[in-house]
Amino acid sequence: MQSLQQKAYEWSGVAASDAFAIDDTNLFETLGGLQPFVDLSTNFYNRVYDDEEEWFRSIFANSKKEDAIRNQYEFLVQRMGGPPLYSQRKGHPALIGRHRPFPVTHQAAERWLHHMQQALDGMSSIDPDSKIKMMNFFRHTAYFLVAGNQMTRQDLGAPCKHATSKPADE
Amino acid sequence: MQSLQQKAYEWSGVAASDAFAIDDTNLFETLGGLQPFVDLSTNFYNRVYDDEEEWFRSIFANSKKEDAIRNQYEFLVQRMGGPPLYSQRKGHPALIGRHRPFPVTHQAAERWLHHMQQALDGMSSIDPDSKIKMMNFFRHTAYFLVAGNQMTRQDLGAPCKHATSKPADE
Repeated sequence: MQSLQQKAYEWSGVAASDAFAIDDTNLFETLGGLQPFVDLSTNFYNRVYDDEEEWFRSIFANSKKEDAIRNQYEFLVQRMGGPPLYSQRKGHPALIGRHRPFPVTHQAAERWLHHMQQALDGMSSIDPDSKIKMMNFFRHTAYFLVAGNQMTRQDLGAPCKHATSKPADE
Repeated sequence: MQSLQQKAYEWSGVAASDAFAIDDTNLFETLGGLQPFVDLSTNFYNRVYDDEEEWFRSIFANSKKEDAIRNQYEFLVQRMGGPPLYSQRKGHPALIGRHRPFPVTHQAAERWLHHMQQALDGMSSIDPDSKIKMMNFFRHTAYFLVAGNQMTRQDLGAPCKHATSKPADE
């Protein structure tokens, strides 16, 4: 079985070394702390909640925008070298598990990435090199979640099957 | 709906502030680097793969012991302040997603924690305060995964249901 990360590399077109180049430096320090992350997530979700594409906007219909913004920037701050704001409030990120209720399709990943690219493009407080690193991380992560979403839904079709003990990530 | 972390706090008996007290300091630096983590995971999985309880041992039957050891210590090093060894090799930890194939029941969580407590008890290279922090993290995480496992299997029973768009973590 192809692993989650192999699928993510293949579908995203982002190599492993690029996907986690955010770890080459401490981006939280490079960007000067919390504010750029708050601004990025605010810009991103303003676009998402105003999306003219109703199918995409509806994915977020049961979530409050201010919660979505906070969840995202706290995760990004934690993941990119800052304090563990997310885990202190909510525990493990558990990206696949927490995205399970949402239909994370290839199409949804591309729409998400479109809005994130637009949001990043508008940020003068993030330097071009950091933008590239962040976008590669986002592109990898979006397709990692497409792969994860397929996995966590693979038993949903009829007939119902019992879970196996096969590792998720061979 | 009760959130994943609320269930974890309730079932584990570990308060939020204790569950992530591993973040109060840099445990990787406190413990002096990689070796204590390698030793802990080796001791842990030696116990697991030799467990007299066949039902528990069999959960790991499809995984190679050396892979299990490496996956664990690379995750722990990364999570506890060291270099991102796990993500460089495998991508996001995605704890719930990657544990989905395994039957992470309350009983399995307790057995896992029993072995981890024994493995930690035998480590002279880890100071008592760090052991308490690590064990609280493990206890919280074990029950977080029990909650996550229930969530990712909730559609497996008959009749088959389609996924909703309700957030996983209200």
